[in-house]
Amino acid sequence: MKIDIVTIFPEFFDTFLKTSIIKRAIEDGLVEIELHQLRDYSHNKHKKIDDTPYGGGAGMLMAFPPFYDVIHQLKRENTKVIMLSPQGKLFNQKTATELSLSKHLILLCGHYEGIDARVEELIDLEISIGDYILTGGEIPAMIISDAVIRLIPEVIHQDSAEQDSLQNGWLKYPQYTKPEEYKGFKVPEVLVSGNHQLIDQWRTKQQIKKTLNKRPDLVNQIEKTEKEVQLLKEFNKNKK
Amino acid sequence: MKIDIVTIFPEFFDTFLKTSIIKRAIEDGLVEIELHQLRDYSHNKHKKIDDTPYGGGAGMLMAFPPFYDVIHQLKRENTKVIMLSPQGKLFNQKTATELSLSKHLILLCGHYEGIDARVEELIDLEISIGDYILTGGEIPAMIISDAVIRLIPEVIHQDSAEQDSLQNGWLKYPQYTKPEEYKGFKVPEVLVSGNHQLIDQWRTKQQIKKTLNKRPDLVNQIEKTEKEVQLLKEFNKNKK
Repeated sequence: MKIDIVTIFPEFFDTFLKTSIIKRAIEDGLVEIELHQLRDYSHNKHKKIDDTPYGGGAGMLMAFPPFYDVIHQLKRENTKVIMLSPQGKLFNQKTATELSLSKHLILLCGHYEGIDARVEELIDLEISIGDYILTGGEIPAMIISDAVIRLIPEVIHQDSAEQDSLQNGWLKYPQYTKPEEYKGFKVPEVLVSGNHQLIDQWRTKQQIKKTLNKRPDLVNQIEKTEKEVQLLKEFNKNKK
Repeated sequence: MKIDIVTIFPEFFDTFLKTSIIKRAIEDGLVEIELHQLRDYSHNKHKKIDDTPYGGGAGMLMAFPPFYDVIHQLKRENTKVIMLSPQGKLFNQKTATELSLSKHLILLCGHYEGIDARVEELIDLEISIGDYILTGGEIPAMIISDAVIRLIPEVIHQDSAEQDSLQNGWLKYPQYTKPEEYKGFKVPEVLVSGNHQLIDQWRTKQQIKKTLNKRPDLVNQIEKTEKEVQLLKEFNKNKK
């Protein structure tokens, strides 16, 4: 996979490219990430890429021509052009999985008050990583890259990706590691019992309980096993 | 405001601390960000902070004692201890606004398969920035810091923060800047008319239309003016 990131702060990605999983994926030739300085596509001799909005309003907007030119230069067959914006479709694990099958992504990072709306006509997808306002699209571009790259086969141990929280709908059961006790805080007894049937039952119950408590909005979206449907009924009965 | 970030990759934040708004807020003394290497709190002579899960399972977990110790050392009166996790409460602009009123935040970045569940008993808030899986809590910690810091009074121009998309519910109307035409793509005529009443009307309509198209889930949550309620009715009638 190739990821082209268009930004006015390419140096912002320096440490990101050197972190464990991303670095390894690059070294193993599984992904290539290239940064593009948007100012290099400015039509202005001072490399200015922003201007005031037509019709008035606070702040500066990023102009259309530099984006048009950079997309025109980088786009190939099968490219997905993605604009990061608080107004886009909410990013989730399903979109990450779909994008991980692409051969080529172009990520456009906005700044200031936003981007000239004509850019929307050149893109395939407008993505928001959440309902909050950030200074620019750079951290969201890292989020998308990180979430997508770790789903490329061979990048991380398959076993681990599949057991991740959210990957199969329910939140993950609580997990504990050594020591068994510290400052009065103890590991639940069942986990040190060595009885794997009991442990599995406890974990399934905990997953359902945790999801009901923390993210009840997720429960309806999950494809459930018969056992899970039954446990869910018991929990709901006990609550009443 | 003071933000303490606990991580096994403190160097990952180097460029983040040097970017425009964050850098200026630090230089102006409006915020202080301190990075803490979790490994410095390891009880192990090799500075190991992870171990296998009790009861079996793939991957490694971050141990309880280092987190207990670092929280114990950093926590003061009025501190909010926040764990970044895909299983937490979904972060949004409302939470960002609430956190921007805090004097002291501690952000805990997880890694590997997760953190020993006993840590949950020491925190005030578990936050997820979205329904997707990331390699670690570092980028989410940047997201929270960025979203919160830009809401601290004096950090960015107030006018601009208030006009941001999402801040008042509706998505922002489309914006355009010079040139008026490029490669056949034109700015809507009304915006170059100079008639501000028409421009305002056009913008309100566009906000409603855009929100209905892109994020219909937001519409019910918005406190609407009478004029907006009326426009909304018209759009819904035309769709039928």
